[in-house]
Order: sequence, then C-alpha cells, then structure tokens
Amino acid sequence: MARVRKQPGTREALMQYAPVVVLEPEQNKGNWKAVFGNDHPIQIEVGMGKGKFVSTMARQNPDINFIGIEVIEEVLLDAVKRMNRAEGIPDNLRLVWINASLLEDLFDAGEVDRIYLNFSDPWPKTRHAKRRLTHKGFLEQYAAILKAEGQVHFKTDNQGLFEFSLNEFSACAWRLQHIQLDMYKKLPEGNVATEYETKFHNQGMPIYRLEAIKPTV
Amino acid sequence: MARVRKQPGTREALMQYAPVVVLEPEQNKGNWKAVFGNDHPIQIEVGMGKGKFVSTMARQNPDINFIGIEVIEEVLLDAVKRMNRAEGIPDNLRLVWINASLLEDLFDAGEVDRIYLNFSDPWPKTRHAKRRLTHKGFLEQYAAILKAEGQVHFKTDNQGLFEFSLNEFSACAWRLQHIQLDMYKKLPEGNVATEYETKFHNQGMPIYRLEAIKPTV
Repeated sequence: MARVRKQPGTREALMQYAPVVVLEPEQNKGNWKAVFGNDHPIQIEVGMGKGKFVSTMARQNPDINFIGIEVIEEVLLDAVKRMNRAEGIPDNLRLVWINASLLEDLFDAGEVDRIYLNFSDPWPKTRHAKRRLTHKGFLEQYAAILKAEGQVHFKTDNQGLFEFSLNEFSACAWRLQHIQLDMYKKLPEGNVATEYETKFHNQGMPIYRLEAIKPTV
Repeated sequence: MARVRKQPGTREALMQYAPVVVLEPEQNKGNWKAVFGNDHPIQIEVGMGKGKFVSTMARQNPDINFIGIEVIEEVLLDAVKRMNRAEGIPDNLRLVWINASLLEDLFDAGEVDRIYLNFSDPWPKTRHAKRRLTHKGFLEQYAAILKAEGQVHFKTDNQGLFEFSLNEFSACAWRLQHIQLDMYKKLPEGNVATEYETKFHNQGMPIYRLEAIKPTV
C-alpha cells in the first residue's frame, strides 16, 4: 500500500495546491535542490499530520528546505488548506503524499539532512511492530537517504513506542544523544510543539525525545 | 577517598569474616581465579548495599563467581552479618570494601565477565554528576576491566539517573539492549529483586533497566 485514499475528489483538490503539493515526487529523486532552486539542506518530517510542526520549522529556518510527508491523502489536503488559510505556505516547504516505506524512491543516498518523527502511531500490538516508524526496516531506509552523520529527531508521548525505539536504534548501531524521558523538564532550545504535543503536555503527560545519528558503517 | 569508615572497630569485626570478606583485594588483581579455585566467569556488583542481590545471584548461579563491592564499611559489615544469619555465604561469593573508582586496582584488563549496578545513588545535583556510577569516568573503568563483549546490567527507580545513564552509555559508544522504561510490565526471566526494588515497586514506582555492551574500539 503506497498511499491511502478514501474520499473521491481529494486528488483533484490536492492538484490545486501544486507545486507546493508535489504530485509526482518520485520524479524529483536526486534532484530536490532544483525543485527548491538552491542547495540548502533538506529536512523531512515523516507523518506530518496537520503540518503545524513542519510549516513552523520552515518559517523559522529559511535557509533549510523542508518536505512534509503524509500517507493519508485527506490529512495532507487538510494540512495544506490550514497552512494556506493561516500564514500562507513558505517557499522552502513542499508537501508529499506517500508512504514512508517508499522513501528510497523519493530520495537519493545522502540527499536528506535530517528526518523528524513526531508522535508517530505507536502500533501497540506486537504483530504490528513492523509498522512503527522506528522499526529497523524504516531505520535502514532512513540511513540510506540521510547524509553522513545525518540525524533522526524523534518525539513521542508513548512510553512503549519510546522504549521500542531506544532498543531499535541501539540494535541498528545508531548513536543516541540528548535522550529525554520528560522533555518539558528541560525544553530543548527552539522546540516547536506539535498539536499532539501541546495537548498531551497540557494533560500532564511526559514527552519523550531523542536524537539518533546515522551509523558510520 | 578510597574507603568510607566511620565507626571504630568495624575493620576488626570485618576481619572475622575473612576470607569471605577480602581485606587486601588489590593483592588478587589478575589472580581472582586462584581465589575462587576455578576458572568460572567473575561477575561483580558495584554498590551491593545489603547484599541480597549478589548473594541470591551467587546461590542461583554456582558456576559463576561473584564479588560484591561496597564503599561504606558499616554497610559491608551489616551485609555479611545478614548473609551469615540467613542462608549462609556461598563458596562462590566474596565481598570487598573499596570505592568503585579503584576498580582498576582490583582487576586486570578483561578479568571481569559482567558488572551489576542496582539502584545506585542518583547524585541529582549537576555538580555531583561525576559521582554517578554511570558517569563516563566510571564507564571507562568498567570497559577496562570487562572482557570483550562484557556487559553492564543496570537497574534504577530514578528517572533522572536513568536518562543520564542512557546518554552516557550512548556517548561512550556502548551498545544498549533490553532497555525497559517500566521493567515490571515484562519482568526479565530470572530477575533478582533488590531490597530497594521491592520497596519502590510496591509503592507503584516504575523500575528502569538496561544492558550495555562494552564498546569494541
């Protein structure tokens, strides 16, 4: 399953938002610098949801190019509509409707500077472990598209997913840093809160965070 | 400070428990197999406290030699008295009164099979970070005395110390495995609970655990 589509007409609605929404992103593989018209680093968010994080990051960091990736077409359409209504869509942001398992079709080896995973679906059942975005199957893909020393920045409210992720990253020889078991005790400088994050933090839930550096092997 | 002594007479009392209590442990450096009279693996607990963990482990694992290490003389004396009153002291157990910072005076490179750290003092103040038994200064000593692929097994109820430890081990290139943010959700097979562990768990506190494998470099 490459993409999730439910409502008819969503694809057509998304087309109105080209070129911000990139409809044939595989065609840009190895060529994203041309898409943005500069050679700034490219950072991606896998599972952007409502898109507040990636659009805020893009506005705050004009010298970095951002790509928000979302598997559910309606969620992507909702996100781009929200951005358009609010502050508008910054030049250094593109949105892509695709499954994370196809990342290697989208990017050349080393084309991506950093990957953000925010409040990914925990898939709590063991038989669904492979769907977790920090499963080793995904980590191998991230390593393939990240530059040398490229990082994954991961936040979640889900203890089980965080524990799983610590073990997966370690087992795959990623180097971990800035691990936090309760991020709001010492908020990282420049933290951009997602919608989920604000909601869960306001409910008194701890937020977990880590940075993982691509293995050198 | 090599050893902590407060009450007069403790040293003399400990001498009654030789050879279980090893009074000049530095003399055995590189020669612990002779002390035990076999070539079984040697596992140590740094900070054994009341000694329940290390004595239970020794009884349950007769083919492994155990050394319990404690910096506070009175605590060591209390532990050996308890063991003596209870099931007696197994042949494969020795107790040593020494500071963890002197481990390299006690063991040759590669002489130790595994190190246990259970509910170590969290030293929560930043200026005391160097005293935490998972500070990189200690990790370097552990790496020096552990065999290749030797492991540290660490348990704590203290979130701050566990977070610190995750980061220290990762920064020092130890490979982490079996990380658990709430150990009693899925208790490891053969877990031996310490006195602290039982107390904190009964109070509903989560227990954190990890295994760290010595770096190959």
